[in-house]
Amino acid sequence: VAIGVLGAGQLGRMLALAGYPLGLEFAFYDKPVNAPAAHLGQYFSSCQQGDALAQFLAVAGVVTYETENVPLSLAEQIAKHKRLYPGIQSLRLGQNRIAEKKLFKQLNIPTPAYQEVHNEAELKAAVADIGLPAVLKTVTLGYDGKGQILLKEEADLARAWQKLQGDPLVVEAFVYYQREVSIIGVRNRESEMAFYPVTENYHHQGILRYSLAPAPALLGAIADQARQYMAVLLTHLNHIGVLALELFETEQGLLANEMAPRVHNSGHWTINGAVTSQFENHLRAIAGLPLGSTALCQPYAAMVNIIGSYGNTRAVLAIPGAHLHCYGKEARPGRKIGHINLTAQTEQQQQALMRQLAAYLPPSAPVLA
Amino acid sequence: VAIGVLGAGQLGRMLALAGYPLGLEFAFYDKPVNAPAAHLGQYFSSCQQGDALAQFLAVAGVVTYETENVPLSLAEQIAKHKRLYPGIQSLRLGQNRIAEKKLFKQLNIPTPAYQEVHNEAELKAAVADIGLPAVLKTVTLGYDGKGQILLKEEADLARAWQKLQGDPLVVEAFVYYQREVSIIGVRNRESEMAFYPVTENYHHQGILRYSLAPAPALLGAIADQARQYMAVLLTHLNHIGVLALELFETEQGLLANEMAPRVHNSGHWTINGAVTSQFENHLRAIAGLPLGSTALCQPYAAMVNIIGSYGNTRAVLAIPGAHLHCYGKEARPGRKIGHINLTAQTEQQQQALMRQLAAYLPPSAPVLA
Repeated sequence: VAIGVLGAGQLGRMLALAGYPLGLEFAFYDKPVNAPAAHLGQYFSSCQQGDALAQFLAVAGVVTYETENVPLSLAEQIAKHKRLYPGIQSLRLGQNRIAEKKLFKQLNIPTPAYQEVHNEAELKAAVADIGLPAVLKTVTLGYDGKGQILLKEEADLARAWQKLQGDPLVVEAFVYYQREVSIIGVRNRESEMAFYPVTENYHHQGILRYSLAPAPALLGAIADQARQYMAVLLTHLNHIGVLALELFETEQGLLANEMAPRVHNSGHWTINGAVTSQFENHLRAIAGLPLGSTALCQPYAAMVNIIGSYGNTRAVLAIPGAHLHCYGKEARPGRKIGHINLTAQTEQQQQALMRQLAAYLPPSAPVLA
Repeated sequence: VAIGVLGAGQLGRMLALAGYPLGLEFAFYDKPVNAPAAHLGQYFSSCQQGDALAQFLAVAGVVTYETENVPLSLAEQIAKHKRLYPGIQSLRLGQNRIAEKKLFKQLNIPTPAYQEVHNEAELKAAVADIGLPAVLKTVTLGYDGKGQILLKEEADLARAWQKLQGDPLVVEAFVYYQREVSIIGVRNRESEMAFYPVTENYHHQGILRYSLAPAPALLGAIADQARQYMAVLLTHLNHIGVLALELFETEQGLLANEMAPRVHNSGHWTINGAVTSQFENHLRAIAGLPLGSTALCQPYAAMVNIIGSYGNTRAVLAIPGAHLHCYGKEARPGRKIGHINLTAQTEQQQQALMRQLAAYLPPSAPVLA
């Protein structure tokens, strides 16, 4: 019996690579004829003839997903016949910024001020309330900075409204954060939980460019706070699998930004940097197995995304402690097509390795300063 | 263009798992309809209709093999059209104990006394020369202790001859070794070489049961000697890819036992225990890429084979620092169906972890003493 994965992109691919050593097999359901995970298990494309979904479900035991943008109706239909992990509740929240924020409030997890808006008048009223700068976001389907517009001044409102209207929208207070961090947690079918070290993340033009683990100079109390928020979320949702929570670190402490009920880009460093990767632990969790250690293998780890073009991968392979992860995707501007993991014994070494990867980073990256 | 692998067993499977992150794709050619690597690339079974070999070669760029028992005629045919790594010379030697031993002698690598025998009279004469105990072995196709018989006394000779006659045979002096060790080396298309730490191996009934890396209490001079033998072999053979050399450690130093022109069971610990696994380095070597670091990730590593039945894998997964590697093979007595890798910060921790895996080891295993 195979693990069924909805989506056959790079996350599905890395799940499969982590799962074969556990003795698991994989089936994927996605649209494109050629997808990053297509060669790593039985592949059912919705473009092929016949009922690909029925064929997929016939071979899948447990079903999981690599994206929270799985239609809820499809997930509900599948959940009637199969174990679907993480469950519908986690998926529903991961799809909807408003629902997510309501849950954060309910669970006493601080989150930036926000207001749902249905028309331009409500947008104006919300901004009057929340203040500028603010961010207008679509409630659903945002990723990699898509579906959000920064509102700096009054004049931006009409333009932003024109651009995003039609979708349900939310205005959020702009947060003057010190940095972005994330925590990845995992909970298995026996309610066992484990947490990876809090990671510092740097986004540029809405896309994650690098992660540092553990987040440099993070106060123990802040890390404890992040773990506590994650534990509360996992437990409240009866979440099974990996859950990622993105947070802003501010002078007033952590503010929850958004969560994702799946393996997450800010956890890719765990493939080489942690005893058990987020991919293996997600599979252990949903397959009814004990969780593996989330400790770092070496004191420092990092991840740099490969965006748009593969660059000089030969030079990357020649760097001791650098690990290349290609997704088998065609290079295209702005597209995540791979990542490079680093492991290091000292923070100095970690920083020196990051500087060796400068060609993969925007010049503005703080780590290059 | 895919890496073509002759053989789709566990070694092919682990090659593919290591190769996808490098952006490589895979094609396999083997006999069984369902093989451990069958789902990890395009699979061409010689049992299927049509010319599976031609189809395999049509998609393969570089061709490699997971077993030295590839028919030489097939390899020579392939090498006419494709880059075949390691080359014919390495393959030919890996197939033939006599050729191997002749090469060891030629390169001044000490090896146990041996004589080729073609009939029972020659066997008697050889044993008179070499002395008892001795070992009668088939010159080709031996693995996991198959194709060899220990000769303790005169009376064993006739029985052994009856059993093995028909194949080309060789008698070797029995070596009163202190332990068995191995070294794995790799050489790439630019003649760059790298060497993994020398490993201690324990065989039981001819089958490798565990490896410890680095080999405990190994003298630096002995490790240097092993590396030097490996370097001489790699260079002499113009070998491209991984080469494994099994050695006996005796009071008089190292004696070469046999070599394998492929990734090797005694190097499976490198998946979790080395910065770059033997599988990744084999692929880097044959794909024309720079080699990766062969250093240990943690000071100690070990590997325990899973033989015959999977046992309590849940308990294995619950051990911090233990990594499960299943091959997707049906359990069958005496069959290698997986292995467990261990990493440890201290030798004490390594030994404690080995004792936790006692159920996977024969009671006679020195590591349990």
